[in-house]
Amino acid sequence: MEPVIEYLEQNQPRFLGELAEFLRIPSISASPEHRAEVARCAHWLADELRRVGLEHVQVLATPGHPVVYADWLHAPGRPTALVYGHYDVQPVDPLHEWQSPPFEPVIHAGSIFARGASDDKGQVFMHLKAVEAHLRTQGRLPLNLKVLLEGEEEIGSGHLDALLEAQRDLLAADVVVVSDTAMFAPALPSICYGLRGLAYCQVEVRGPATDLHSGSYGGAVANPLEVLAKLVAALKDDQARITVPGFYDDVRPLSPEERAALARLPFDEPRFKAEVGVEALQGEAGYTTLERIWTRPTLELNGMWGGFTGEGSKTIIPARAWAKLSCRLVPDQDPERVLDLLERHLRALCPRTVQLTFTRMHGGKPSLTPLDHPAVQAAFRALERGFGTRPVFIRAGGSIPVVASFQQLLGLPVVLMGVAPHDDHAHAPNERFGIENLMGGARSAAYLWQELASAE
Amino acid sequence: MEPVIEYLEQNQPRFLGELAEFLRIPSISASPEHRAEVARCAHWLADELRRVGLEHVQVLATPGHPVVYADWLHAPGRPTALVYGHYDVQPVDPLHEWQSPPFEPVIHAGSIFARGASDDKGQVFMHLKAVEAHLRTQGRLPLNLKVLLEGEEEIGSGHLDALLEAQRDLLAADVVVVSDTAMFAPALPSICYGLRGLAYCQVEVRGPATDLHSGSYGGAVANPLEVLAKLVAALKDDQARITVPGFYDDVRPLSPEERAALARLPFDEPRFKAEVGVEALQGEAGYTTLERIWTRPTLELNGMWGGFTGEGSKTIIPARAWAKLSCRLVPDQDPERVLDLLERHLRALCPRTVQLTFTRMHGGKPSLTPLDHPAVQAAFRALERGFGTRPVFIRAGGSIPVVASFQQLLGLPVVLMGVAPHDDHAHAPNERFGIENLMGGARSAAYLWQELASAE
Repeated sequence: MEPVIEYLEQNQPRFLGELAEFLRIPSISASPEHRAEVARCAHWLADELRRVGLEHVQVLATPGHPVVYADWLHAPGRPTALVYGHYDVQPVDPLHEWQSPPFEPVIHAGSIFARGASDDKGQVFMHLKAVEAHLRTQGRLPLNLKVLLEGEEEIGSGHLDALLEAQRDLLAADVVVVSDTAMFAPALPSICYGLRGLAYCQVEVRGPATDLHSGSYGGAVANPLEVLAKLVAALKDDQARITVPGFYDDVRPLSPEERAALARLPFDEPRFKAEVGVEALQGEAGYTTLERIWTRPTLELNGMWGGFTGEGSKTIIPARAWAKLSCRLVPDQDPERVLDLLERHLRALCPRTVQLTFTRMHGGKPSLTPLDHPAVQAAFRALERGFGTRPVFIRAGGSIPVVASFQQLLGLPVVLMGVAPHDDHAHAPNERFGIENLMGGARSAAYLWQELASAE
Repeated sequence: MEPVIEYLEQNQPRFLGELAEFLRIPSISASPEHRAEVARCAHWLADELRRVGLEHVQVLATPGHPVVYADWLHAPGRPTALVYGHYDVQPVDPLHEWQSPPFEPVIHAGSIFARGASDDKGQVFMHLKAVEAHLRTQGRLPLNLKVLLEGEEEIGSGHLDALLEAQRDLLAADVVVVSDTAMFAPALPSICYGLRGLAYCQVEVRGPATDLHSGSYGGAVANPLEVLAKLVAALKDDQARITVPGFYDDVRPLSPEERAALARLPFDEPRFKAEVGVEALQGEAGYTTLERIWTRPTLELNGMWGGFTGEGSKTIIPARAWAKLSCRLVPDQDPERVLDLLERHLRALCPRTVQLTFTRMHGGKPSLTPLDHPAVQAAFRALERGFGTRPVFIRAGGSIPVVASFQQLLGLPVVLMGVAPHDDHAHAPNERFGIENLMGGARSAAYLWQELASAE
């Protein structure tokens, strides 16, 4: 592996120039006026995939932005890894908070600053450079490799599931590698082995036919907004445990080993509170903050409204009230079943003085990759060699819908190996990517092909 | 009294023409572009007051719309009655629902249809015609009379309190008569002896510094919108009783006699439910619907909002949440004290994970005129003679701020003697006033001067 690693070090200055070229393309997927730039980015990427030596490069059209595919399949009998990433970026508002223009990359204090630097162009790029290093120095990769880079991750990957199903043969692999999650702390390589799922719904409560005068009717007619507040309030007890019957039935208990491992992570609670801007944290009794965020299901009131919400006072009993509720799910909870339980419980609690409508919105299953999975262990060794630091195993509280899609639609294990710490400002002004992390990530990716090849 | 009553009957056709002239003036106080029309209405009314024979007619300027005053003070040693009413009207939206234009009065099926017909121009007009009948046939009134007609009732009477205080001497009287409340049922003359007061506030709950990603933080950070829902939900128990400590302390208990009297009223509960558009009513245990609306205090959630309220789904923990809450009050509750109790209780319930801001909005005291007050008894006899039907005593669930002002600022008893039933569509399209009620009201007003003169 020495020539591969040496190649990476020797070519670092050129890499930074190439990455800057990638970052200069304003591939904002959410913005209709940037549509041509997103397409230009896909074609730049296709050219880059050819330059690093990958084959069968294709720009696959979707009803939205295109997906870029390439592969190298000259290792018969060896496993096949599929690298997933995305080349689209978040919008740049508020623009005035950027210290340099978001699409004019600058290198400053050891980082490259630009929109997309860490999320996810820089992390896609480090994988491509690892491929280039192998092919240029060895003439081959230690395993078969496929690369799938989408242009709609920041707007929900709306067309990816259909593409995964349609291109099932093209995308056949043994493992998926994604570098789009966070490092737990700066310079601390992290493997994310669990993501929470999601179950989202909207509840409407209807009472009187129209808003009523609270003087003429107040005291005799149920107030739908109050009914809704009572319903929502009844969904958690004083210990912040969710009271929906059966809600926790499918939750896989945390093992003592995992709890111990989580407790060993260098979690800085005062810093977490300062980031959030609260004086005190709050959550389910009996669990630490990390356990609450990563390993426990939640029920969150994401929005609620009804009645008079303007300036001043208006004395009405509102006719209708609405709430948006969502649950973060953990293995082995199922979004549909959780929504069933929630709907049943709300209907049981709801008085007959009002009507309740329950609308299912989107859902996604939670995911958990066993720590002893050979691909996870291979990633561990690769990161340790790439960064020279023993990695930590982490989970994430959010959902990456595409991860669930790979697991459920293609039946593949997913290794989440992100190398950008939280303070790289993904989605915020002054996004950056540390050059040390770029290089550590590229080295780790280079090691990963070897580790995966020998692990399987 | 016979010539007075005869005069009213004989002049009915002319009265309808004059009332139509009054109704043709679009005196919409809420509409800045109708400002000149409101002023024109005030001057039309001043002329009308002179025509009926009143003296000292003044159009009193306020920072808003003017107030019209007149009097007749030639009964030394007799009591003085002050008639209050308003000449401004509600807006006319939705205009397309009117079967005839709102400011082109038409007589149809025994009613005159126009904006302001019953609220309150028609009821002001019937008082003026009663004065005219006395002065034309008797050359005098049985008592001293003052008339005060404002132009801002529909927008909250914002400048009336200052005028009452500034014109304390001008307005000195023994009793105030107001015809701006409803008849309990068609053709059932009603004396309203109680109004509820009001205490209005806004509550804000602040949590994290900004909206948080519900995946990355959900489970570990208190959700201000949930906290607010729990606070609101905790304000009433399962019997719909308000749980704020001390809330009921100052509530004067209902006497068995009053409960019996209320129970005898011809209240049509199925019709009430149909009007409201609900299948089931709901309220404080142990009280009837009329008792709940008229005689018991309430706490109502008038509005609540926070988090994501748009189409679709957004997975956030909102940073802030708001609620508008108001209490209808009954004697002897005090708005300031009730807001003190509510604020103290909310602060006691509020967890330290969030910050609560309590903002006092407007308040008004409840009012209750004793049924055995001579002026109330006089009004009872006047209505009975004017309509030929035994009146009922009713209360109202709403507040008429000006009534509290008369009671508190001038220390005067107020007799509420409205003759427009609920189905006259005050504030709605196709407002009307029954000609039978106009004439019954004018007769009752004519009798009232006599009854008040002999009662005191």
